[in-house]
Amino acid sequence: MNKAAFEAFQQRREAGNAALLDTESLAIKRFMGLDKTVYGAGALDVGTKELLGLVASMVLRCNDCIDYHLKRCVEEGHGKAELDEAISVALMVGGSIVIPHARHAALTLQALLD
Amino acid sequence: MNKAAFEAFQQRREAGNAALLDTESLAIKRFMGLDKTVYGAGALDVGTKELLGLVASMVLRCNDCIDYHLKRCVEEGHGKAELDEAISVALMVGGSIVIPHARHAALTLQALLD
Amino acid sequence: MNKAAFEAFQQRREAGNAALLDTESLAIKRFMGLDKTVYGAGALDVGTKELLGLVASMVLRCNDCIDYHLKRCVEEGHGKAELDEAISVALMVGGSIVIPHARHAALTLQALLD
Amino acid sequence: MNKAAFEAFQQRREAGNAALLDTESLAIKRFMGLDKTVYGAGALDVGTKELLGLVASMVLRCNDCIDYHLKRCVEEGHGKAELDEAISVALMVGGSIVIPHARHAALTLQALLD
Amino acid sequence: MNKAAFEAFQQRREAGNAALLDTESLAIKRFMGLDKTVYGAGALDVGTKELLGLVASMVLRCNDCIDYHLKRCVEEGHGKAELDEAISVALMVGGSIVIPHARHAALTLQALLD
Amino acid sequence: MNKAAFEAFQQRREAGNAALLDTESLAIKRFMGLDKTVYGAGALDVGTKELLGLVASMVLRCNDCIDYHLKRCVEEGHGKAELDEAISVALMVGGSIVIPHARHAALTLQALLD
Repeated sequence: MNKAAFEAFQQRREAGNAALLDTESLAIKRFMGLDKTVYGAGALDVGTKELLGLVASMVLRCNDCIDYHLKRCVEEGHGKAELDEAISVALMVGGSIVIPHARHAALTLQALLD
Repeated sequence: MNKAAFEAFQQRREAGNAALLDTESLAIKRFMGLDKTVYGAGALDVGTKELLGLVASMVLRCNDCIDYHLKRCVEEGHGKAELDEAISVALMVGGSIVIPHARHAALTLQALLD
Repeated sequence: MNKAAFEAFQQRREAGNAALLDTESLAIKRFMGLDKTVYGAGALDVGTKELLGLVASMVLRCNDCIDYHLKRCVEEGHGKAELDEAISVALMVGGSIVIPHARHAALTLQALLD
Repeated sequence: MNKAAFEAFQQRREAGNAALLDTESLAIKRFMGLDKTVYGAGALDVGTKELLGLVASMVLRCNDCIDYHLKRCVEEGHGKAELDEAISVALMVGGSIVIPHARHAALTLQALLD
Repeated sequence: MNKAAFEAFQQRREAGNAALLDTESLAIKRFMGLDKTVYGAGALDVGTKELLGLVASMVLRCNDCIDYHLKRCVEEGHGKAELDEAISVALMVGGSIVIPHARHAALTLQALLD
Repeated sequence: MNKAAFEAFQQRREAGNAALLDTESLAIKRFMGLDKTVYGAGALDVGTKELLGLVASMVLRCNDCIDYHLKRCVEEGHGKAELDEAISVALMVGGSIVIPHARHAALTLQALLD
């Protein structure tokens, strides 16, 4: 994934969010709001929470979620060595079925750190 | 997803079904047949069963299955408000890992209700 | 599962909820609150939402969640024929790996309808 | 798991099957019937199919299913060395989250081969 | 999937592997190495192990993994009838949510056996 | 879960590990060894890696894995406030289907911090 592909992903994501939030359902809106507040600073710092979000996204095998959390992890200052170790934990817990997502993460990380 | 994209999905789906059913395996054929009869009218009406299929597809995170059941739900008369509530249940049970699929569902629904 | 076992399950559930809500984490509290409001009446009636919760719980294979939603479904007036059809949809979508949970559901349902 | 525990498991399984099949739902009955015929001899022999069922049950992490297929694998003549290799494939594909189920399988296998 | 699409998949896979292995993490390297040795000949022959990998990949619903193991199964001499039976076991265990992946497998198999 | 129950869990775990490692399979032994080294100190400290293991175990819904990583997290110095925030991330990502495991974690944590 190069930078252009990453920006296209972000545009699709925003269009999808807009469609999802164009709703009368208060539950959907509250759910989406809670999803933001969970990653805020507290007893754990934001960077650690983003690592948790990354590994959870990898073992549950969601590339969109991986890309989002990888970007946030880089913004919070995690470097390649730390992120590779998080990826290794996700591979170990989730098994070889996670490998295609680890490949995806490695390519996204190349684009983000380029 | 616009209407053209939805029709392309349906063509890929039919080609795949044709390839899958080009088989000597009676078990595959019986499995595919049973998958149709399960959603027929009975103690529960067809519309309710399609809602069940939609939510099951969302928490198990299969976009092709979501698109199929969304289309069937709309054909059975469910409107946007009802489908948004079904989506909210799926988000709640399945968590934020389902959000990319809820985005996908919201975009498909736009195309279906357009 | 007989009635005594069902009541023991409910007591364990309440003790667990009390321990989980004994927390400074606002996110946990809001999450647990949202989980209740999602199943309230709206564009879909409560009984339909409980069926959705049941099938989602079955395909994701959580016996505690199955028992909770089965009890709520019976309280909302669903009978054995309707619940068996919901179980059949869950089996079809989730596959034979769901069978042990369908057995569990059938035994819980015996206790609930006894 | 010793032999007494294994027999208790089989009795619970039969009671659950009886409750599940005490139904008007033709779909449940056909689903349960198809689950038997899938493992019959064909282009693949029964022993190989049972190995496939075992590994599928392990990566999807269902102890009841693991116990059932382990017993069938032993009946079909697979020894400890072969079953350990099947377990190793399941661990590799499914990751360390499968370890508790691999422990369970190892203990069941001790009882079965005793 | 035609032959050109299959070769494009293999190129993406190699680029991803190269990115993933461009790391200081010994754990990632050992994990990737172990993933190869698990499928080597032993008490079970390589062909049987590849069938196990195929069915595990199908019930866990990973198209990239399915394509890889299908190719290896064909290289090890499994024909369409045997592979269709493996697919039928995966459908039965994993349920209708696996159908889109069974369609994918059937199309890949057409390209591989063409 | 009280302390006696936690110790019983650890004994079952050790007996299972002994049975699993009583094998000729080098792959099983290497897999179990790699599972230990992944959590060692490196670019990420041990405490952070155990938090990653905890959240991965929660979203994949494995109580034995949750208990193991909770104990390790407490040994590495994480307190209730930090662990509750990790639990909140797991609930958010994994959804309400994780609630029974969050209850389990809360009860285990009571026993560990008692």
